[in-house]
Amino acid sequence: MKGKASRQGIHFRPHFKSHNSAEVAKWFEEAGTDAITVSSVTMASYFAAQGWKDITIAFPLNIREIDKINLLAGQVKLNLLIEHSETISFLVEKLKFPAGFFIKIDTGYNRTGISPNRTDLIDQILHIASIRKDLFFKGFLTHSGQTYQASGRTEISRIHKQSTVILRELKNYYKILFPDLWLSIGDTPSCSVAEDFEGIDEIRPGNFVYYDLMQVQIGSCDYRDIAVVVACPVVAKHQERMEIVIYGGAVHLSKEFLNDQNGTRIFGMITEFHESGWSEPVKNVWLASLSQEHGIISSPNSEFFDKATVGDLILILPVHSCLTANILEDQIII
Amino acid sequence: MKGKASRQGIHFRPHFKSHNSAEVAKWFEEAGTDAITVSSVTMASYFAAQGWKDITIAFPLNIREIDKINLLAGQVKLNLLIEHSETISFLVEKLKFPAGFFIKIDTGYNRTGISPNRTDLIDQILHIASIRKDLFFKGFLTHSGQTYQASGRTEISRIHKQSTVILRELKNYYKILFPDLWLSIGDTPSCSVAEDFEGIDEIRPGNFVYYDLMQVQIGSCDYRDIAVVVACPVVAKHQERMEIVIYGGAVHLSKEFLNDQNGTRIFGMITEFHESGWSEPVKNVWLASLSQEHGIISSPNSEFFDKATVGDLILILPVHSCLTANILEDQIII
Repeated sequence: MKGKASRQGIHFRPHFKSHNSAEVAKWFEEAGTDAITVSSVTMASYFAAQGWKDITIAFPLNIREIDKINLLAGQVKLNLLIEHSETISFLVEKLKFPAGFFIKIDTGYNRTGISPNRTDLIDQILHIASIRKDLFFKGFLTHSGQTYQASGRTEISRIHKQSTVILRELKNYYKILFPDLWLSIGDTPSCSVAEDFEGIDEIRPGNFVYYDLMQVQIGSCDYRDIAVVVACPVVAKHQERMEIVIYGGAVHLSKEFLNDQNGTRIFGMITEFHESGWSEPVKNVWLASLSQEHGIISSPNSEFFDKATVGDLILILPVHSCLTANILEDQIII
Repeated sequence: MKGKASRQGIHFRPHFKSHNSAEVAKWFEEAGTDAITVSSVTMASYFAAQGWKDITIAFPLNIREIDKINLLAGQVKLNLLIEHSETISFLVEKLKFPAGFFIKIDTGYNRTGISPNRTDLIDQILHIASIRKDLFFKGFLTHSGQTYQASGRTEISRIHKQSTVILRELKNYYKILFPDLWLSIGDTPSCSVAEDFEGIDEIRPGNFVYYDLMQVQIGSCDYRDIAVVVACPVVAKHQERMEIVIYGGAVHLSKEFLNDQNGTRIFGMITEFHESGWSEPVKNVWLASLSQEHGIISSPNSEFFDKATVGDLILILPVHSCLTANILEDQIII
């Protein structure tokens, strides 16, 4: 991903929420990354304590955390995310150190951000911010999360194109007043699939560090790109239902699921170790349900069922690696 | 719940997985509870370290954790859960201290446990266990988790009756060889609704400590019984969609959801503080979607929408309090 950003001549600011790990962060550092994205003030503080000096908190500013934000702004090069005049007014009044800010633009995901045709709201924010000379307008930031609902590379590319067209128009509109403003995009599907980043200054993908079954289904990656499994012990087997019970539940994997082409809920798929890594998902076997600590694997595949023994470890490819990694950060299961 | 157990003359062994908190555990201790249920060896070790001396791990024995199990068996009165001859053989060979065990019976939930008509499998386990005089057969344990799919008190009562009939038949069958064997049941819906516990020796409910929206939907409790909310800051508002964005996502609440009568997914409902506690759910407002850190509240209720201001705290009643409490155990959000 870093190579792709370099080839395109754009800044690489990976999102660290997907791993939230000081160790994985070191791999990025060794590869030359020096700027990061996080999704909470807590996460920013964590990575600041590890020595990261250039951090964007890509989450609408929570004014209740102003004290921690001020601490951070005194320590690192901090960028905040704004989409309301109330928030920027608060910041103008309370910020104690220099900071940058992006304005969040909604390019079609409809989760957060200002609609791009509401330049009146954007102008209002910029006007309020201009009171402070140490509060820098960095540019426009979006997260085209609608790509997470896409069904294939063509749809991802179409969404990416729409988003970048919208952002470029905004840049053109504001470039006389702000000639150095940046456009920052983030979603892993677009960053994985797209080749045309015209006008874009920065990418912030996160999930790509592990990928997962959802990204395979969307079309961002292939199974062999998934870089995380959860090893779960077999604790019971039920021949009459061809089910294997594992110690691995919602508190380990999260309750995220996919629907396969028959509408069956898939909470994870199963892979096996090979010399060169792990296999493609085992056919005709899937993680069919999760309760708090239990997982139930359906295995009409009798060869797999027969081989599984109480005490074995079964390797689960997660549906959404960000949630799984978040939950398992501090846990070791043996 | 403790009062109900006392009145019925049955043993109360609450499940601590729902709170997993030393502080909440103290409330139970102060109310005279001295025996507990947990769902993992890790949780057993945690509560053993807090001084709890009588612990049932109501999860099929994970043989890979035998070293930690031996440590515990040397410290507390420990009960384990068995449903396979391989597991009991392993235990007979490796257990270093006295312990009790329950045999898990599947009374219709079809998740784990031995089918009650497979007395051949039960006999096999009892035969293997009899080699060790310090491995005590305590009785039969079930979790009628199918009550979590029930739609009302009548269905809960019907499931409870079916389960207890099955268990009593097993007790009758084995009482000559094991006159002191216990029957232990667990699910919160049955324990909340049922009044007939004939033949049952122990209840192990957990969720009742907080209850949640799922339990209201099932019929276990009323809204005013829910004893946990998550306070989430408002970070953005979108008038055109009547949506409020909160800092409160899947990593705080879990992705568990309910479907309302129209099939709308509900990830949480909203309550408000009153002098005497919190209100019934605010009408025409619900937590409509969750991403990793964001929650989106749909508020066709314009009075509620207009009142909400960036920086306010909104109180979310969770769908599944066990998962929410598990995730938020060590986190404070301000």
